[in-house]
Amino acid sequence: MHAEIHEQPEVLRRIAVSEWHAVQEVARAVRQHGVRYVILAARGTSDHAAQYFKYLFEIENGIPCGLAAPSVVTLYRARLNLQGALVVGISQSGQAPDVIEYLNHARAQGALTLAITNDPKSPLAQVAELALELHAGEERAVAATKTYTATLSVIYLLSEALKDNASAPESLATTAEQVQQTLVLDATIEAVVDRYRYMRECVALARGINQCTAMETALKLIETCYVLCKPYSVADFMHGPFALIEPGFPCLLFAPDGATYPTVLESARKLREGGAETITFAHQPEILRLARTPIEVPVAVPETVSPIVYAVLGQLFAYHLALARDLNPDQPRGLQKVTRTL
Amino acid sequence: MHAEIHEQPEVLRRIAVSEWHAVQEVARAVRQHGVRYVILAARGTSDHAAQYFKYLFEIENGIPCGLAAPSVVTLYRARLNLQGALVVGISQSGQAPDVIEYLNHARAQGALTLAITNDPKSPLAQVAELALELHAGEERAVAATKTYTATLSVIYLLSEALKDNASAPESLATTAEQVQQTLVLDATIEAVVDRYRYMRECVALARGINQCTAMETALKLIETCYVLCKPYSVADFMHGPFALIEPGFPCLLFAPDGATYPTVLESARKLREGGAETITFAHQPEILRLARTPIEVPVAVPETVSPIVYAVLGQLFAYHLALARDLNPDQPRGLQKVTRTL
Repeated sequence: MHAEIHEQPEVLRRIAVSEWHAVQEVARAVRQHGVRYVILAARGTSDHAAQYFKYLFEIENGIPCGLAAPSVVTLYRARLNLQGALVVGISQSGQAPDVIEYLNHARAQGALTLAITNDPKSPLAQVAELALELHAGEERAVAATKTYTATLSVIYLLSEALKDNASAPESLATTAEQVQQTLVLDATIEAVVDRYRYMRECVALARGINQCTAMETALKLIETCYVLCKPYSVADFMHGPFALIEPGFPCLLFAPDGATYPTVLESARKLREGGAETITFAHQPEILRLARTPIEVPVAVPETVSPIVYAVLGQLFAYHLALARDLNPDQPRGLQKVTRTL
Repeated sequence: MHAEIHEQPEVLRRIAVSEWHAVQEVARAVRQHGVRYVILAARGTSDHAAQYFKYLFEIENGIPCGLAAPSVVTLYRARLNLQGALVVGISQSGQAPDVIEYLNHARAQGALTLAITNDPKSPLAQVAELALELHAGEERAVAATKTYTATLSVIYLLSEALKDNASAPESLATTAEQVQQTLVLDATIEAVVDRYRYMRECVALARGINQCTAMETALKLIETCYVLCKPYSVADFMHGPFALIEPGFPCLLFAPDGATYPTVLESARKLREGGAETITFAHQPEILRLARTPIEVPVAVPETVSPIVYAVLGQLFAYHLALARDLNPDQPRGLQKVTRTL
């Protein structure tokens, strides 16, 4: 897992160079098809990448996006009217049976279909009309790291291609550089995790486009540390779940710069008033000063690509906490690399 | 909270009688508008009702549905192309500022808009072209109970109206009767919760259309018992999160009859192998025999309306567990009845 976390800048640079042409072809097909809305079919880590897709395409491209419920097709045998839809299947292995079946159905029901996968020869890539590749190389760790940020990167390129932004590959290369600079926090994070050796549960909070970062970090903590971590949009958390807050309740808070920063800052103040133990990942000193455990991100990142950089922080936190708990993050109990859902 | 839980059969019967005409009017407008897909804007409990809407309309009506990310409009100021969309805002109070703003935007961007709220004079009802009412009466408890099942009931009627099912009000009256019969479990549940007096965390599992039941039960447990409960589709849980399972790990399992039952049964077997402590709500004796704490639901319910009946079980469990923990379920710490998100 640790080696794969550190491979990420290289993978991102590879995508910028190798996949831009294919991405532009997909963008052309999407325009020609007259896509009105997007449905994303995915599970686990890929489902978090789908959340990024939704926010990015709605914010940058104005195309409404929703997440599929594959069981509607695989178990309930519904027939959806999908004229005008782009249906995107995301699976790192390309083996997820329910995602494959959903795309098969979508294609028969009139949707344009796209696969995003690390294996261009996989069944998912075969069943879709269009396919994009992650170029992440083999991933050995059960906990996905480089395939996750690779998926976000391909999604980012596609959004930019739809806007005819020819400099998107250079922007992604810059993001790769910022991921590299952020990996320097490896030692900082290793030094702070001991405090959380006996943490039993926690929440991971973010807002807007970084909701995926909270979700992905929560899954890494669950898989590698067996800590029940529940991700929330801070907007939802301030409804009922805020009742959880008592002195010492641990909250991971992802607070990159951007449109969502003021509302996250306001939540950080309320968490402090409630006595929560906040572990805050941010670039702004103001919100870091409110944290019990501030992790200062050394780079200011455009909000649209911030989930790529901030994902790495969650990965490092989960990895080091697993070691501090005397667990092997590369061998989570009870799991296999590919899970098959029907 | 307890009185409002027991009011539910009456509220459901009232909806069947009072709202069917308005529902049919909305169904006519939806048909005339040529709706291609639906977007649902909601927070908290209403967001869980939106999940029910998504599954029900996709299964029964073949109309693809997705959940809105309100911040896309309220914080990122995106302009979505919403031609051909029905955008539904759900808010029990009708006061949620972000849901109101989302519907305002949707209407300006060419969508047909519908409000579902307990207050037909509320700002949300005013901003939408169409509105449906919950007829739940005043809800005093912070934890929503009767407004939740009322929302599901209105959604059910709308789905049936779109299928021209004239007997939908009678079906809802039957469901009200089944809720009444299920409320008999009040004493049974009170008797079993003591075992969970010191439970710190748990997961709530279901599949398909009952994913909303897992989500809603988790929120009730969080709000009233301060137990960190994370809801999962069993399909997702069998990916990474299964690593949480160790002997004694508590899992609430909702397993009504229907298309999803076989996969939930298979998960129940795996949970038993892993030594999990399962609290199972079901009608089938087979899956109840696998549970540490079986709660036998006295009625067989059609799967499409099962979330209305099974929600009541989660409410009773949360209510009695709060009392067992010497907490007052009617006064959760740090919460107000209406939360305003911007």
